[in-house]
Amino acid sequence: MLSPSIKSELKRIVGKENFSSLSEDLLCYSFDATNNPSKADAVIFPSTAEEISLILKMANAEDFSVVPRGAGTGFTGGAVPIEGGLLLSTERMKDINIDEENLLATVGAGAITGDIQDMADALGLFYPPDPTSAKFSTIGGNIAECAGGPRAVKYGTTRDYVLGLEVVLPTGEIIVTGVKTLKGVVGYDLTRLVTGSEGTLAIITRAYLRLIPAPMARRTMYAAFAELTEAALAVSSIIGSRIVPSTLELIDESSLKCVEEQGVLKFPELGGILLIEVDGDEGSVDEKAARIKDICVECNSVEFRVAEDKWEVKDLWKVRKAISPALYRIRPKKINEDIVVPRSKMVELIRGVKDISTERDVVIACFGHAGDGNIHVNIMIDGDDAKERERGEEATKDLFKLTLSLGGTISGEHGIGTSKAPYLEMELDRNSIELMKRLKDSFDPKGILNPGKIFIDKE
Amino acid sequence: MLSPSIKSELKRIVGKENFSSLSEDLLCYSFDATNNPSKADAVIFPSTAEEISLILKMANAEDFSVVPRGAGTGFTGGAVPIEGGLLLSTERMKDINIDEENLLATVGAGAITGDIQDMADALGLFYPPDPTSAKFSTIGGNIAECAGGPRAVKYGTTRDYVLGLEVVLPTGEIIVTGVKTLKGVVGYDLTRLVTGSEGTLAIITRAYLRLIPAPMARRTMYAAFAELTEAALAVSSIIGSRIVPSTLELIDESSLKCVEEQGVLKFPELGGILLIEVDGDEGSVDEKAARIKDICVECNSVEFRVAEDKWEVKDLWKVRKAISPALYRIRPKKINEDIVVPRSKMVELIRGVKDISTERDVVIACFGHAGDGNIHVNIMIDGDDAKERERGEEATKDLFKLTLSLGGTISGEHGIGTSKAPYLEMELDRNSIELMKRLKDSFDPKGILNPGKIFIDKE
Repeated sequence: MLSPSIKSELKRIVGKENFSSLSEDLLCYSFDATNNPSKADAVIFPSTAEEISLILKMANAEDFSVVPRGAGTGFTGGAVPIEGGLLLSTERMKDINIDEENLLATVGAGAITGDIQDMADALGLFYPPDPTSAKFSTIGGNIAECAGGPRAVKYGTTRDYVLGLEVVLPTGEIIVTGVKTLKGVVGYDLTRLVTGSEGTLAIITRAYLRLIPAPMARRTMYAAFAELTEAALAVSSIIGSRIVPSTLELIDESSLKCVEEQGVLKFPELGGILLIEVDGDEGSVDEKAARIKDICVECNSVEFRVAEDKWEVKDLWKVRKAISPALYRIRPKKINEDIVVPRSKMVELIRGVKDISTERDVVIACFGHAGDGNIHVNIMIDGDDAKERERGEEATKDLFKLTLSLGGTISGEHGIGTSKAPYLEMELDRNSIELMKRLKDSFDPKGILNPGKIFIDKE
Repeated sequence: MLSPSIKSELKRIVGKENFSSLSEDLLCYSFDATNNPSKADAVIFPSTAEEISLILKMANAEDFSVVPRGAGTGFTGGAVPIEGGLLLSTERMKDINIDEENLLATVGAGAITGDIQDMADALGLFYPPDPTSAKFSTIGGNIAECAGGPRAVKYGTTRDYVLGLEVVLPTGEIIVTGVKTLKGVVGYDLTRLVTGSEGTLAIITRAYLRLIPAPMARRTMYAAFAELTEAALAVSSIIGSRIVPSTLELIDESSLKCVEEQGVLKFPELGGILLIEVDGDEGSVDEKAARIKDICVECNSVEFRVAEDKWEVKDLWKVRKAISPALYRIRPKKINEDIVVPRSKMVELIRGVKDISTERDVVIACFGHAGDGNIHVNIMIDGDDAKERERGEEATKDLFKLTLSLGGTISGEHGIGTSKAPYLEMELDRNSIELMKRLKDSFDPKGILNPGKIFIDKE
C-alpha cells in the first residue's frame, strides 16, 4: 500500500489532477483484454520522462511497484497491476511529429497507433504494424509487446520499425537507445531488448519510428472453402509460390459461426475463408491477384472475389473485424492463444487442433494471420464452469505441445504476461530463462517494475 | 598464457589437428581489416556447439580469454585477440540448409555469406544483407557485427533477417534464442541482443535466417556530377520523392582519384558519382529508373546511364568495388569510419567533411551507402607519420562531433570494437554504458569472452 506521504509526494510530482486513488478510477485501470482485473493502489498520469524518473526513483527508495500501461488492450495481462502498487498511464504523452524528409516519426509513448498511421497516411507515408487494436492501443504498449497484426506477413512487426527509444530505467535514469537514422550499431541493442519486454525492463516515453512510402495500389480478395484444410493448403501454396501478400488471414468455421450468431453475416456450409491483400505498384497487383486466384481455385475454393471498390474492401474486412468481439461476447472467459507454426505446417496444425477439440470436448475457433503462421486459437470455454475450465487448460497445453512439435512458438505477438507465464518453460530452456532473469536484475535490481510478469518464481 | 595442460586438454576436445600454437598460424589469425594485429596464444577450430561449450567452461575454470572469429574481415578490431588468449575460429561450422517451403535458411556460424546468397539465389530466393566482404566474410561475423551493405536502404541490415540463433554462453551453456518462424515474442529478445554484440556476449554457432522471394527485375544506374554537393542533393531528393532504391551509393572525387591512381578507370573533372539500383516487378523498375533520371538531371548531373545488360551492370559496380582496395593500397593505415546521418543532412555532412579536411590538412575520401545516410569516411593518413596520425585523430573527433550534431551515429555497420571504443562516450551517455556493462556481466561474469572490446575501462 502507498502511504499518505508517498501519495502526497506523487501528487507534487505530477500535479494533483494527474493522480488518483479513487475506487472508480482504480477500477478503470484494473484490466486489459484478458478479463482478469486487479486494482492498483493509485493511478498516476505523468506527462514527461522527468516526472517518470522522479516516480521511479521514489519507487526504489520507498519500495513500491510501478506498472506501466498504454491503453490496456493487451491479451496476456501485461498492464494489469496484479500486485497492486502504482499504475502509471502514459496516455498524456501523445505528441506525434513526422519528419517527411527522413521518413521518421517521433512519438510520445501514449500516442494512439492509429493516429500515427493516419498522420503518416495523410503525407503519403506508411507505418505498417497494424494490431487489430490500433484504433485504441498506444504505440508504447505496441512496442512493449512487440505488436504484430495482419500486415506482418509482408512488413514485419513493431520491432522492425523502432529505430530508437527514450526510456526511463526502473532505477530512474532517462536514457536514449538506438538511433534516429536508418542504421546504427553503437553498443548493445537496447532498443530491441526493451521492445517486447512487456514493460518489465523500462518505461518507454518516446519512440523514433521508421516510416516507409505508402504502396501505390492494393487489391483485397476473399476466398471461401468447404474444408478448412483446403484453405490452409492454399495458404501454404501461396507462400510456397513466392508471392508475398501484404495480408493473408484465415477464418475457420467455428469463428464464422460465432459471427453468424451475432446476426451480422451468413456463411452457409463453409469450412473456412481466406482474406487476402496484395499491395505494390499499380501494374503488379492485378497480376499477383490473378496468381492467387489460380492457387485458390486449385485448392478447391467454392468462391473467390476481388473487391471492386473501397466499400467492398470494407465489407470483406467486416467479417475479420467482427470475429474477436463476437467470440468475446459468446465466451468472455475464453482462452485466446496466438501460436505460430512454420507456414508449411498449417494443415498439420489445423488437423491437430481439430483432434484436440474432439479429445478435450471443447469448441475451438481459429482465425488470424495465417500468412506468417500466426493463428489465434480461441478455446471457447465457459470460464465459470470449473470442469470446462479444466478441459480448456488441458487443451491449451495440448495446443502448445502440438505447436512446439511442429517447430513453432507459443506466442507470435501477444507476449507472455501472466496468462502464458505458466507455460514459459515449455518453450524456453532453464538456462535461457535464468539469463533473462539476470538481465531483468541488471535493469531493475529491486524488482519494482511490473512485477509478476513473464517469469513465475517457483520456490 | 595457456599452460601445457590446458593446451593438451583443448586438443583432446577438438582433435589435435584442430588446434595450433604454431607461430605462423597465430600470425594468420592475428589481424582483421584494421591492420592492427595481435597474436593469440593458440588457435582452435571446433566443429560443434558442444565442443565450444567445453572450451568455454574450461576458459572459466582456468581463467583464459576466448576470442571468436569468423573470417577476420571486420573494420574495428572485433576479432583481434588484443589480450592474447585462445582464438576460436568458427570456419569449420559452415553447413547451409535451405527450407524452400518456409523461406528459411539454417546455417552454421562459419558459412560464407556469399555462399548463402548463392544457394538462395539458385532457388529463386534472396538473402539481402550484402556487406562488401560477402564473398569472404562469415554469417557468424556478420551477425556479431550486424553487418549492413549497399542494399540496407531498402532491405535493412543483418538483424532484420535473423529469426533465431544457437549460441554458447560465455559460461558454456548452449541455448537457442528466438524462433524458426516469422514471428515470436516469447521472453526477452536475446536474438537481437546478441546480434551486433561484437562477439562479447556469446559465441554464435548456428543461425536461422529469413529469406525472401528474389525480386523479378533490377535496373542499375550511374549518375555523374561536377560537384559532390549536387550528388548529395540528388540523394536527399530521391529519398524525399518516396522512391526506395535497392542501392544508392555515393562516391566522392577523392575516392575516384584513388581508383584512377590504380590505373583502372578515369573520371575527369567529376566531383562525385552515384551508383543507383532499383528492383521489384518488371513493370515498375523502368518507371522508377525514369523518375530517378529526372531527379539527377534536375540536380545537374553531367552524365546519366542505365546499364543495358549484365556486363554493363558489372562494369558500373567495378568502380564501387575498386574503391576500398584502392584506398587501402594507397594508405594502409588510413582511418576508416562509417558514420550515419539523417538523409536530409547529406549535403551538410559533405560540406562539413570538406571543412575538416581543409582545417586538419588531411585528405578525406568519402563513399558508401548514401541512401541510408551511411557514409564511409576515409581519413587518408600515413600512419607512420606521427604528426599526420595526430591530425587524423583530430579529424576523426571533428567528424564524430559533426555527425552527432546532425543527429547521426558514429557507426552504421562496423561496430565499435577497439578502434571506436575511445569515442563511445561521445554518443552514449554514462547510464547507457553502465547498463550495457551490467548486461555484459550477466552473460560473462568472469569477462573471458572477447575482452577489451566496445568498452574501455577508465580507472
